Amino acid sequence: MPAVTVDPLDPVFDLHRGGKMAVTSTVPLTSREDLARAYTPGVARVCQAIAADPDLADVYTWAGRSVAVVTDGSAVLGLGDIGPRAALPVMEGKAILFKQFAGVDAVPICLDTTDVDAIVATVTALAPSFGGINLEDIAAPRCFEIERRLDAALPIPVFHDDQHGTAIVVLAALRNAAALLSRKVRELRVVVSGAGAAGHAVTRMLIAGGVPAETMVVLDSRGILSAGRGDLTGAKAALAAATNAAGRTGGVVEALRGADVLIGVSGGTIAEEALRGMADGAVVFAMANPHPEVHPDVAARHAAVVATGRSDFPNQINNVLAFPGVFRGALDARATRITDGMKLAAAEAIAAVVADALTADAIVPSPLDPRVAPAVAAAVAAAARQDDVCRAR
Amino acid sequence: MPAVTVDPLDPVFDLHRGGKMAVTSTVPLTSREDLARAYTPGVARVCQAIAADPDLADVYTWAGRSVAVVTDGSAVLGLGDIGPRAALPVMEGKAILFKQFAGVDAVPICLDTTDVDAIVATVTALAPSFGGINLEDIAAPRCFEIERRLDAALPIPVFHDDQHGTAIVVLAALRNAAALLSRKVRELRVVVSGAGAAGHAVTRMLIAGGVPAETMVVLDSRGILSAGRGDLTGAKAALAAATNAAGRTGGVVEALRGADVLIGVSGGTIAEEALRGMADGAVVFAMANPHPEVHPDVAARHAAVVATGRSDFPNQINNVLAFPGVFRGALDARATRITDGMKLAAAEAIAAVVADALTADAIVPSPLDPRVAPAVAAAVAAAARQDDVCRAR
Repeated sequence: MPAVTVDPLDPVFDLHRGGKMAVTSTVPLTSREDLARAYTPGVARVCQAIAADPDLADVYTWAGRSVAVVTDGSAVLGLGDIGPRAALPVMEGKAILFKQFAGVDAVPICLDTTDVDAIVATVTALAPSFGGINLEDIAAPRCFEIERRLDAALPIPVFHDDQHGTAIVVLAALRNAAALLSRKVRELRVVVSGAGAAGHAVTRMLIAGGVPAETMVVLDSRGILSAGRGDLTGAKAALAAATNAAGRTGGVVEALRGADVLIGVSGGTIAEEALRGMADGAVVFAMANPHPEVHPDVAARHAAVVATGRSDFPNQINNVLAFPGVFRGALDARATRITDGMKLAAAEAIAAVVADALTADAIVPSPLDPRVAPAVAAAVAAAARQDDVCRAR
Repeated sequence: MPAVTVDPLDPVFDLHRGGKMAVTSTVPLTSREDLARAYTPGVARVCQAIAADPDLADVYTWAGRSVAVVTDGSAVLGLGDIGPRAALPVMEGKAILFKQFAGVDAVPICLDTTDVDAIVATVTALAPSFGGINLEDIAAPRCFEIERRLDAALPIPVFHDDQHGTAIVVLAALRNAAALLSRKVRELRVVVSGAGAAGHAVTRMLIAGGVPAETMVVLDSRGILSAGRGDLTGAKAALAAATNAAGRTGGVVEALRGADVLIGVSGGTIAEEALRGMADGAVVFAMANPHPEVHPDVAARHAAVVATGRSDFPNQINNVLAFPGVFRGALDARATRITDGMKLAAAEAIAAVVADALTADAIVPSPLDPRVAPAVAAAVAAAARQDDVCRAR
């Protein structure tokens, strides 16, 4: 990564001066009576009531509506392991998007450790202050273990956005792309290029959403994941076992031959030649940021629908369509975790917002569409109740 | 502690519904251009600049102006160990007082552990997100070790408010009481009833502020601390060694015989008889909350100046006079720690606000006096520069 210095002419630095967020009081604090209610001695009665019934903290503190945005700074955007201080502008950005789109109060927590045990212990310790944990920009494969252990340990939702936020929006986009092309999701042969956090979750989510696992093919930097590869362990070995029933081998060219869908979550590049082998009416989501795996203009020569992660091309697949509404819904329902059913409901809700007006350039809503987060929240809350993961009120 | 339930007629519960604080964005988020600057792709440039020079996080994130209010819920108000969830209303209260009086953005972090090593590890891990650590309501004696270790480990200020906030305001009040009575602080014989977190810090602070250590007497629940007591270890043994050069023994009656000043930070009660032995023109600060060690009307029969921790009597000795300005000043100066010089400067600044209009009922400013925090902040920042503990800009 080349060193970047502050450019005084770059408006982005001006915008970031002093950070992007603030804490405010929601109660008056101007008289002695105000102080006696919001602070001592009045506050003691609220503390005592919560001590007698800890669930009351959801009602009488902000823990019922606040989320910690937790990172170790190890996989920030496409920048890699830049550490907790340098990750903070991204986490502040997430926090204010939470507020802007779903009224969720979020706090950046950037951790000065990349040790799995230390991260799990730290987040477990600070969890009582919050109603949910949004994990962010933590490198694979340790993000899987961290999320799994925290999900098991904590009575509040834990959600690794790079995995599940991305997967939710990809599924929404794929449903609408299939609908536009009059195809069934269950008939699509899908190739996922990238077997990190996002590739893993996208694959799992698409399978949960109806894409046939046996014909799916996932690639890492060495090629197609298959049961025959001797170099795979852990999460990648599990992905290989769950997909590619035919035991295909080779690289991206072999993977894409006859494929209907390419989903790029690799950060690498894919040559135009590889796309020539795709089936007619293909779908390409080239989501690497800021440089898509294949330029969308190039992809359009070989695909009927093209999406990227960029705001300056049509069909921006952006996590902001998912995470604000997912947490809003989970908090509203007092969900103890985020189930697959809740994630599928979120994807359906995102897709439904634009389902009546589908075009090849509008398979997902704009990230600024104000209808999205409320629709996602309502769907996620309903699914949480359906899945019976809500605490009693 | 008797169980307290929610009283629907108690306006304090209504006020606390949903908590007392919120997060807000300080930048616009309504257009694609806004998103591209505050979030991806623009934010990546700020991240890269901080990665190259981590000190820039003070300028381009909220870490330069935010404080974590950290507790383990083990010594909350006078309620004792009520746990992290029940402590949250107090921490939210602290957070909004920080904002109201000094513009400091503070976040409650309530920890689900009372283990010293775990608390130190957790706070060390999350510290990169913040500009300071305000420890709160952590029981003695482990609060001493936690603060000492965090102060040594972290490049940002660490301040246990129950100790130092209380001590700063007590010193301010004692200076003004002495001035009102035309006495010199260095001539006063002071008794501190209570050898917990506050008693420890008050004793140290008064010594630093000119009260003679050799004539000071500190009491715990068993009586006067003296070098001859065989049951003392750690912080209490150190207090015994530093004070009571004459080796006085006995209880509060013996301690107060001929004493000029009683400072109650015990939570216990002191009988009127004990006060009869105090010197003429005595000073009594009975700070237990909500029940002062001795009722102020009773104390007034034996003392020329009386103060409590309560808002419904004159001379409220309240930490809110100290902590907002202390952190504002430390953050403004980019101090790496809070020195004794900064604490003494804070006490002087608080005392000075009302020094021109002293009466027996007004030895400290009102907690709502808007002049206090800016005066404290300026004095603390100047002392930080004097003590050379500021990071370079």
